[in-house]
Amino acid sequence: MQELELLEEHVSFDGVQYKYRHDSTTLCCPMTFSLFLPDKEKFPNPPLFWWLSGLTCTDDNFTHKAGAQKAAAKLGVAMIMPDTSPRGESIADSKDYDLGQGAGFYLNATQEPWSKNYNMYDYVIKELSTIAHEQLNLIGKEFISGHSMGGHGALIIGLRNPERFQSISAFAPIVNPSQVPWGIKAFGEYLGDDKKDWLAWDALALMKIASGKKIPILIDQGEADNFYEKQLQPDKLVEVAKEKDYPLTLRMQKGHDHSYYTIATFIEEHLEFHLTQLTKKD
Amino acid sequence: MQELELLEEHVSFDGVQYKYRHDSTTLCCPMTFSLFLPDKEKFPNPPLFWWLSGLTCTDDNFTHKAGAQKAAAKLGVAMIMPDTSPRGESIADSKDYDLGQGAGFYLNATQEPWSKNYNMYDYVIKELSTIAHEQLNLIGKEFISGHSMGGHGALIIGLRNPERFQSISAFAPIVNPSQVPWGIKAFGEYLGDDKKDWLAWDALALMKIASGKKIPILIDQGEADNFYEKQLQPDKLVEVAKEKDYPLTLRMQKGHDHSYYTIATFIEEHLEFHLTQLTKKD
Repeated sequence: MQELELLEEHVSFDGVQYKYRHDSTTLCCPMTFSLFLPDKEKFPNPPLFWWLSGLTCTDDNFTHKAGAQKAAAKLGVAMIMPDTSPRGESIADSKDYDLGQGAGFYLNATQEPWSKNYNMYDYVIKELSTIAHEQLNLIGKEFISGHSMGGHGALIIGLRNPERFQSISAFAPIVNPSQVPWGIKAFGEYLGDDKKDWLAWDALALMKIASGKKIPILIDQGEADNFYEKQLQPDKLVEVAKEKDYPLTLRMQKGHDHSYYTIATFIEEHLEFHLTQLTKKD
Repeated sequence: MQELELLEEHVSFDGVQYKYRHDSTTLCCPMTFSLFLPDKEKFPNPPLFWWLSGLTCTDDNFTHKAGAQKAAAKLGVAMIMPDTSPRGESIADSKDYDLGQGAGFYLNATQEPWSKNYNMYDYVIKELSTIAHEQLNLIGKEFISGHSMGGHGALIIGLRNPERFQSISAFAPIVNPSQVPWGIKAFGEYLGDDKKDWLAWDALALMKIASGKKIPILIDQGEADNFYEKQLQPDKLVEVAKEKDYPLTLRMQKGHDHSYYTIATFIEEHLEFHLTQLTKKD
């Protein structure tokens, strides 16, 4: 059992919003995460929604800006929000916004100076999961979502663990990081020059070789998103999904940009999408 | 006509969230404000909701954290969010969070070094109102709301202008600033030592002498708000409202604290409260 330090606790709708700190053994530094729980009496065993944030974000961005608590309280969904990278003065960093702290890319780094701390994949899928399941007793069905770099994270984590996650959703995800500037820069630094090693962390590559259970995917992409063509390219994943008969829905959202205003607009529909998949399966 | 510089524009639900900058002649500095407009075709002449934020806030806090756009888009309400004080390196300030920049208290200062710039009352009620009415063509009915120091602002501005505002609401307002530490400190600095001069900016004092139109007031106060007893004391305003037969409803909210989580939880009910008053009157 890890020691969880409760930093914040706020009544929010008829649930509670928490923020915790703990000493991560995977990342070798203190980490914060946020957690929303719906009313315990109404929803004693809620499903668990994992939210992975984008570049420069912490666990606070979604918690403060998405307005998701209202829908989660109504629908009876627990939500867990990790930070986006290891943090601290002793942790390797870059002056760039798209590398180092705030830019962990949800992978396990193999290169120096990153490999000691930059293991966000193991942190999310193992360490924080164990905390959620065993310490916080969140043992309901699970689904995963995220934004931009966090949309990439949701896709790779979901595709690598289709037996664990019931469904995946994403806002403006980086679907093929091996081939776009953000991913090429980060993967080269974290994983080295051999691009074969990148494919285990690339949603498009993972879907191409997927042979197990196919879990439903919903993607919302703003048409006015400045990163759409150069960094995100969700249409490429739609093509592979068609080839592989993978259940993916891409919704192009008119006028919407890369901001949290887009997430706030559609987050309730994402929660409903995930719950609908649960109902279909149960 | 003032030049309005558009800093941000985001589609949000089926409305648009804007952020502007302009050179304020009242405050003698550049100021930002935020504006949400519901769908223009569905709501061509929306009522206008004024939101005044609390200590340390800017126009961004409510815009980012209250999740109010969803309800405003659905109900057809425009929302305007001023900053909480003049800003800039040349503007008088204090190292304290509750005085100077971020702490304008929605009054017109008479004392040095504050009197040149700290005229938030005139800024809201005249300069920004003229921009809203004449440049942004927001000519619907108006109501006013706010949080903490901004709840104080909403009460004093509404009580001083009952012919203009249809109704007032507030979250955890400072109702009697003349008698509590935040107000005593700020009013002493901004208005000087003669406490008679404070009464024009004190909701409780204004309600005691109110003789004109009585407009409905809704106040939400969290029971777990750390500032409730020492700084806010809404019960005192309830007493005066009873004496004066003023239509005030105070709702004590169990478990809720002073944070934006409380505002997010009840903001839709506040918008509905204001719209209900409109319906009663029309």
